[in-house]
Amino acid sequence: MGATLTTPQGTAALLAAVAGGLAVHDLGRQLVQGMPQSPNHPPYWHALPRRHGDVVRADGGSAANDLITMGTHVGTHIDAFAHVSHDGKLFDGSDAAEAGRGGRFAELGVHTIEPMVRRGVLLDVPAALGEPTGCPAGYEITADDLAAAERLQGTPVRPGDVVLVRSGWGRLFDDPDRTVYQGKETGVPGVGEAGARWLADRGAHAAGADTIAFERLAPGGGHASLPAHRVLLVERGVYIIETLVLDGIAAAGVHEFLFVLSPLPLFGATGSPVRPLAVVGA
Amino acid sequence: MGATLTTPQGTAALLAAVAGGLAVHDLGRQLVQGMPQSPNHPPYWHALPRRHGDVVRADGGSAANDLITMGTHVGTHIDAFAHVSHDGKLFDGSDAAEAGRGGRFAELGVHTIEPMVRRGVLLDVPAALGEPTGCPAGYEITADDLAAAERLQGTPVRPGDVVLVRSGWGRLFDDPDRTVYQGKETGVPGVGEAGARWLADRGAHAAGADTIAFERLAPGGGHASLPAHRVLLVERGVYIIETLVLDGIAAAGVHEFLFVLSPLPLFGATGSPVRPLAVVGA
Amino acid sequence: MGATLTTPQGTAALLAAVAGGLAVHDLGRQLVQGMPQSPNHPPYWHALPRRHGDVVRADGGSAANDLITMGTHVGTHIDAFAHVSHDGKLFDGSDAAEAGRGGRFAELGVHTIEPMVRRGVLLDVPAALGEPTGCPAGYEITADDLAAAERLQGTPVRPGDVVLVRSGWGRLFDDPDRTVYQGKETGVPGVGEAGARWLADRGAHAAGADTIAFERLAPGGGHASLPAHRVLLVERGVYIIETLVLDGIAAAGVHEFLFVLSPLPLFGATGSPVRPLAVVGA
Amino acid sequence: MGATLTTPQGTAALLAAVAGGLAVHDLGRQLVQGMPQSPNHPPYWHALPRRHGDVVRADGGSAANDLITMGTHVGTHIDAFAHVSHDGKLFDGSDAAEAGRGGRFAELGVHTIEPMVRRGVLLDVPAALGEPTGCPAGYEITADDLAAAERLQGTPVRPGDVVLVRSGWGRLFDDPDRTVYQGKETGVPGVGEAGARWLADRGAHAAGADTIAFERLAPGGGHASLPAHRVLLVERGVYIIETLVLDGIAAAGVHEFLFVLSPLPLFGATGSPVRPLAVVGA
Repeated sequence: MGATLTTPQGTAALLAAVAGGLAVHDLGRQLVQGMPQSPNHPPYWHALPRRHGDVVRADGGSAANDLITMGTHVGTHIDAFAHVSHDGKLFDGSDAAEAGRGGRFAELGVHTIEPMVRRGVLLDVPAALGEPTGCPAGYEITADDLAAAERLQGTPVRPGDVVLVRSGWGRLFDDPDRTVYQGKETGVPGVGEAGARWLADRGAHAAGADTIAFERLAPGGGHASLPAHRVLLVERGVYIIETLVLDGIAAAGVHEFLFVLSPLPLFGATGSPVRPLAVVGA
Repeated sequence: MGATLTTPQGTAALLAAVAGGLAVHDLGRQLVQGMPQSPNHPPYWHALPRRHGDVVRADGGSAANDLITMGTHVGTHIDAFAHVSHDGKLFDGSDAAEAGRGGRFAELGVHTIEPMVRRGVLLDVPAALGEPTGCPAGYEITADDLAAAERLQGTPVRPGDVVLVRSGWGRLFDDPDRTVYQGKETGVPGVGEAGARWLADRGAHAAGADTIAFERLAPGGGHASLPAHRVLLVERGVYIIETLVLDGIAAAGVHEFLFVLSPLPLFGATGSPVRPLAVVGA
Repeated sequence: MGATLTTPQGTAALLAAVAGGLAVHDLGRQLVQGMPQSPNHPPYWHALPRRHGDVVRADGGSAANDLITMGTHVGTHIDAFAHVSHDGKLFDGSDAAEAGRGGRFAELGVHTIEPMVRRGVLLDVPAALGEPTGCPAGYEITADDLAAAERLQGTPVRPGDVVLVRSGWGRLFDDPDRTVYQGKETGVPGVGEAGARWLADRGAHAAGADTIAFERLAPGGGHASLPAHRVLLVERGVYIIETLVLDGIAAAGVHEFLFVLSPLPLFGATGSPVRPLAVVGA
Repeated sequence: MGATLTTPQGTAALLAAVAGGLAVHDLGRQLVQGMPQSPNHPPYWHALPRRHGDVVRADGGSAANDLITMGTHVGTHIDAFAHVSHDGKLFDGSDAAEAGRGGRFAELGVHTIEPMVRRGVLLDVPAALGEPTGCPAGYEITADDLAAAERLQGTPVRPGDVVLVRSGWGRLFDDPDRTVYQGKETGVPGVGEAGARWLADRGAHAAGADTIAFERLAPGGGHASLPAHRVLLVERGVYIIETLVLDGIAAAGVHEFLFVLSPLPLFGATGSPVRPLAVVGA
């Protein structure tokens, strides 16, 4: 980063644009114990080893602090290229088992994902389909659906963009039955193989969704096959962002924005929890 | 967030400013096992419960994933107001012990910190002091030092800014003796009580440093007293960001920038690991 | 421990009894990811940060090792007196909130449980009830049931014994639906308030069961009330051991045995995973 | 287990021996945050996610519980055969990398260690050497030293015994400088290759020590070579128990005892924290 020749004037212009007023839309889920997630990953668990009043210093000060255990694919998160392999190979053609030797992916781990400050586009598929509450459970979002959303909104995807695909499934995140959002029984709507190719062909830098798996999942089907992961992470080099909050920007009609995401540089890990932002100007 | 009335034109201006070219400076440390940290907090530990090749699906796909355990005040991180109390009270005057009942801080936890997209200012204290390698160990950075840096650079702090105070101590982060950066024996340079008041008086929204504790620590002194934490987190409501990487922007002469930080919304936690960005225009 | 005056002759007699032949029955469940447990506790999760071949020393040697995260009330485990309070008081009459200040129970934590090498008695309630497959779901095991089992077996409980109460529910531990053993919908058979008083009146040192909660749980009822925990842990000072494997000793007709349990001395914790043994002679 | 034909009479004899009076010596270290350990393993960390008073039920009851993160080779612990390989092979000749595929050792994991209820022998090497405070730092305990201790005590090792080798180093466990017990600078006394062969030749079922590594470590040497681990775990099939508390039984003159150890059956793990017992009769 930082290869671009920057100037005080350029920064001044940027700060002036910011000073004109911004709205910052939060696209990340709160991390809370018991939130819905894939059971393949260690759940988020939090405790305070020290609370206020446990140890008070002579000067009246006291600190509280945390212990966290979690997987990196829980809550809103990004997948590094190290996460998925096909026929034993990662995106860079390297041997996947070899790349993870030592318990860390030095080459394609999440620490290698550069922070994103890029144009973002929301593709509101339910709006394009005329399905106000969202895509049906188990629905495969096709390339045509994505193109229809793009046309309807007037926000063509350009190379380097981050493309967030709304299915409407996010409304189920807070269902009291925490397994509903997982959709094991019902299936989950999502992008299929053809849709994934469309995203890659358009030059998306990263693709996101308001579901756990990004993919279309068949009812009762589990993860027998994850073609969108294969296409995006292994074949084409497009990052995947999952469990996003997209209903807010959809309701606000925000289809184009400055997308900001700064993954934790967890050395050698396969993913990171993130809190992405959609920034719009006034 | 999102209270501002935004317009497509505003967003277009913002994207135009971005399209003109950006440099994104990464201010976060990689999270790696064994990195220097305060021993008061659970260390960062990472493992891959599943590696590629462990379980290969019939379609040739395989996933690797992570298990993470850590405190929230390790690596580059932000302190929520819930982190520190004085005489039993938090920033909002609430009873600190009561606020943490249930093991989570509903009111002042790190999930209440709004993402920051703000003007940022680096105060390069070693440059102002004429100390090329950095402030001496255990040196207290005074209000005058901060004002001198501001003047020398021509970047006055304005209300709402995020102010990053460089001490030069960050050069020790990668010392083979992982306790050197902690500075228990030597002391650590940092802002003292008067400097903290200066930052709050100038209206800083958050203050950061390239050290673990932000504060000036006396040699051998440990944490007997943390006046800057008291002033900033308890009295004045200024967030603290620690263990930042500041040498890069200092070397590049970047003293003013768009500061972006999006803490993980860990419900009720006292802090969050973060990867802040300093964005400059071309 | 060790207050008794011991002699080489005493040890020789003990070793002679052992040398005559022993059968050691394992009463502990394997700890495996995804095993049934109460959702109130952090699940058991295991990973290998280092595997063989990751780092091979010049001499050809290599080590693999583990990272574990877990609650202490998962798998087969023992409850310390610190685990449960009633009306704000622990077993020793101390203020429960105060006792846990600092995040550790110095007085009644699991580290204060002395290892047990004692007479153990299995009370096989299904056999006494003439219910071959086990007590019905949600059945309350009464004092009469316990007395009937004791009579039928001819193994009266004596002061200081560890009493293991079999309900037959353990057969459901390996049900493919991992929530069946929790019995949230069906209820779970177990000792009620009167049965708990009977156990304490007989002088039991500890009481165990083949269920997660020891208690009788009503269908759909959750943990609204846990009277046996109150009686045993708070009022009478009897330890509770849960999620035991009891079908094997029941099938073998082993109702009396040397019970051995050595909890991990986790300083200040409220419980410990354990692997208790029932030792019988030849 | 349980293959032996057992009889009520045999159990009665065993219980009679117990009823005659026992002393149970605890050979395990308390697990406390910050205790000395090898830095190769995740440290023990404990927190209470819920304390008394956080959530009080309508009936006045309240529960406190724990979150634990740790390695399995911290505190007093046992090494499974899966822990160490040599030239790519484990004890059973299997390919070590292959055996750990899937992140768990199905064959030689710690869950395969049967609970031990066996004769135990303490070999008090400092007593045999006439070194009252313990073996010198970095001293290699030889086969002759072990044989001398055995002779002096009059407690010959027999096949199937568990042999605990006291070096005297355990006195340093509570040194305020928590790195002293690790002995990186000083070296640590322990059994060398020849001593390990002597233990295996005598038919030891398991061998233990009052140090972290069991082995003799050279000053400043680290773990360049661990011949005793190779001999015991890879070549001969003898379990290793580390960080034992042996000074108490040595001071009491207890050289022969009933040794009881019941490792947690952590499926597929390379070791387990344990709390072993030395039981002697009255």
